[in-house]
Amino acid sequence: MKPSIPKGTRDFSPAEMAKRNYIFDTIRRVFYTYGFQPIETPAMENLSTLMGKYGEEGDKLLFKVLNSGNFLEKVNREKDTKNSEQITPESSDRKPSSDNCSLFIDSSDSPSLNRLAAQLCEKGLRYDLTVPFARYVVMHRDEITLPFRRFQMQPVWRADRPQRGRYREFYQCDADIVGTDSLLCEVDLVQMINTVFCALGIRVAIHVNNRKILSGIAEVIGQADRLVDITVAIDKLDKIGLDNVNAELAERGLPAEAIERLQPIILLSGTDDEKLATLRQVLADSPTGLQGIAETEFILKKSSLLVPDSEIILDLTLARGLNYYTGAIFEVKALDAEMGSISGGGRYDNLTGIFGLPGVSGVGVSFGADRIYDVLTQLDLFPKEATEGTRVLFVNFGDTEAAWSLPVITHLRKAGVATELYPDASKMKKQMSYANARGIPFVVIVGEEEMTSGRMTVKDMQTGEQTKLTPDELVSMMTTTD
Amino acid sequence: MKPSIPKGTRDFSPAEMAKRNYIFDTIRRVFYTYGFQPIETPAMENLSTLMGKYGEEGDKLLFKVLNSGNFLEKVNREKDTKNSEQITPESSDRKPSSDNCSLFIDSSDSPSLNRLAAQLCEKGLRYDLTVPFARYVVMHRDEITLPFRRFQMQPVWRADRPQRGRYREFYQCDADIVGTDSLLCEVDLVQMINTVFCALGIRVAIHVNNRKILSGIAEVIGQADRLVDITVAIDKLDKIGLDNVNAELAERGLPAEAIERLQPIILLSGTDDEKLATLRQVLADSPTGLQGIAETEFILKKSSLLVPDSEIILDLTLARGLNYYTGAIFEVKALDAEMGSISGGGRYDNLTGIFGLPGVSGVGVSFGADRIYDVLTQLDLFPKEATEGTRVLFVNFGDTEAAWSLPVITHLRKAGVATELYPDASKMKKQMSYANARGIPFVVIVGEEEMTSGRMTVKDMQTGEQTKLTPDELVSMMTTTD
Repeated sequence: MKPSIPKGTRDFSPAEMAKRNYIFDTIRRVFYTYGFQPIETPAMENLSTLMGKYGEEGDKLLFKVLNSGNFLEKVNREKDTKNSEQITPESSDRKPSSDNCSLFIDSSDSPSLNRLAAQLCEKGLRYDLTVPFARYVVMHRDEITLPFRRFQMQPVWRADRPQRGRYREFYQCDADIVGTDSLLCEVDLVQMINTVFCALGIRVAIHVNNRKILSGIAEVIGQADRLVDITVAIDKLDKIGLDNVNAELAERGLPAEAIERLQPIILLSGTDDEKLATLRQVLADSPTGLQGIAETEFILKKSSLLVPDSEIILDLTLARGLNYYTGAIFEVKALDAEMGSISGGGRYDNLTGIFGLPGVSGVGVSFGADRIYDVLTQLDLFPKEATEGTRVLFVNFGDTEAAWSLPVITHLRKAGVATELYPDASKMKKQMSYANARGIPFVVIVGEEEMTSGRMTVKDMQTGEQTKLTPDELVSMMTTTD
Repeated sequence: MKPSIPKGTRDFSPAEMAKRNYIFDTIRRVFYTYGFQPIETPAMENLSTLMGKYGEEGDKLLFKVLNSGNFLEKVNREKDTKNSEQITPESSDRKPSSDNCSLFIDSSDSPSLNRLAAQLCEKGLRYDLTVPFARYVVMHRDEITLPFRRFQMQPVWRADRPQRGRYREFYQCDADIVGTDSLLCEVDLVQMINTVFCALGIRVAIHVNNRKILSGIAEVIGQADRLVDITVAIDKLDKIGLDNVNAELAERGLPAEAIERLQPIILLSGTDDEKLATLRQVLADSPTGLQGIAETEFILKKSSLLVPDSEIILDLTLARGLNYYTGAIFEVKALDAEMGSISGGGRYDNLTGIFGLPGVSGVGVSFGADRIYDVLTQLDLFPKEATEGTRVLFVNFGDTEAAWSLPVITHLRKAGVATELYPDASKMKKQMSYANARGIPFVVIVGEEEMTSGRMTVKDMQTGEQTKLTPDELVSMMTTTD
């Protein structure tokens, strides 16, 4: 039997874990300094919590967990109620019919397939961290003091078709502030995004947009219900050019007049201030649009004072999350790598309404660990210390030498130095190649001479240099060169 | 709609997370200093990897994940092969029969229920970290240098009946050394267990036993195949007393003569040395038993030199994991709390044999985070610093004051001090009660006077004391009192 893992999932080796933990630790440390507090929610949520929250496509991508025990119980019960005279042939003489399942289903008929899935499964794996967070806020509303600044770093699961860079299990790192509509929160998040990427050494551009501006645009060209069509087309400007964008808009059914009015928006350019000035003219008749402009101006002005390291750009083509974002929209792109968005977020006005708690506004940001990993790899930005495991290996020459070494090893570990004794008295060559394979920078040799003199031979594996050190000298060397 | 979570699962609040992270961080730090390296494996494994590894009972407790897309496909395909003439009534005129599922199943018949589950589901949630680790070692054998010291801290899922202290989702923290049978590894783990609990401030007794001693005992009383019966009964000595243990042994079918010969073992007492001496006499005719004694003596002798803080006890009643442990067995009990085992482990000689890679011996230890949490709570041992979130809250009096405060906040955060600005210019009282509810120790007030003088009012929330500080003084106070 050759073991394997489900497609779209991954094992992480120690070397990969070291790099991933460097990313997670950096993000977590920044989250803490910005006053965010961690929560965790279960991997499994009730399907009633998850279904209908991610659109029809999302429902299909939920991993469903088979009810434990007799998973046909619910299928039967429902059949008994609806169609109690139906009895399966072989069972009738042996058991009460409720123990039996007789199932006729056209499995190419998705509504009946969905119905059956809902009878077989009550639970599903979480699809993102936002819906579980909304559920959390509602369930724990009496314990939470608003505004609530929470972060969450946990895996999510999606039954997407796996492909390069897209996995069925991946971590999300989310930070949200809920219970206030203060724009200072948006400013806080922009600044935090900047702090995270500065700490990681990645130069980024933070793209900012506002749902209200997009709504205003759709409104003033008389196409209020075509927001998504418009932004999807505009978003392609860089890739396909103006003519093709206009063609696509026409194809999507926008009248020529509306497309005409849209031109100054599609071609909007200049500094952020100039863009805002143009927009203020174009959207003069849309109160929503004007509010979006005012919000964006506030966010850009305050942020530019606090975030000198990152580019902040007003980007009208930014149209992520239009299903839920109601105000600011953020997206972060690495300047020195071709990677798409490595972080994003926005404001949603009614996070918890769907669970019966209206009026809770929130704004959040999510960091994409996998893409950040790829950027750091491309740009060779992982610091060497972050990927180091064991620092000192003691060679094992036999029982006596091992016994002599153990207290020294204990001493090093107490001082926080990651130290191992090779467990077997194998050939020196084998032990040295273990040190090499593990990337252990220092090897300590304790033989007869060393035990007599009390000075161990310490070999720097990179330079090959050997020195003779007492246990105390070794500890002090390992704790000061750190 | 009132949201809820699946039974047996939990949300973790910020306060709980702080305490849990204190435990995980402590254990992780110790793992690193002992040269262990982290890996992670997917939450979902193929059911073929998991099934049959945890006994029949374990198979039932696996959470199975419904195949995505048309989950009836495999049910149909198999039916088509086996019983191709069977066509469901309503489908015959509309679709090819392979799109339809006609299912007659007696759901009280578990073999056919299991067969159906295997058709509906190919994946399951991991049940422990050991089997995925074994699978990992086999899959990645070409990348791994043995001996391999790995740790893993991830949740596992079991469809157990939820009850007090038993959850359907819980974290395991495992450290294992595989690829060597050196007893120095057992010594390393005993020492590491001691280091972890010293760091947490929990006084423990480390109980040690050896599968080979138990086998030797069963052998010399002529009941080699009754190992489990014997140890289950012996294990109850403390609870039910000698007479009842003997009665239970008789009930389990042990002959009177065997029970008679077992008495010196059941009543074994004295120091570890005395116990070993008695055992050496009783097991004189069992080579396996004598090897178990020699191994145990080595582990106890070496450990007692390195682990002065913890009690180490030879405990023959310790009989956990007899399905897989082949040598040393460990179990850790808190001395000052009634809690049962808070950590345990042992040596298994053939971890990866089941996946086609024989001859890989390993020894490991697992820490029970939930029980450790309960012990620390009972004994009030969580350090105050470990549970502190935000350290400084800036009160918000309006735009001007907020704008004045933001650069100071940035300065504090850069110095690593967790700092927030209250996002709204709400009433002072509301902002102060937010600080109280969050347990924030310092509140900074910036009003007109403070902006003019450049000295902020800093209130110590515990003492109520107020001081006037410049931004630099505030940063230096926050970073030195840490």
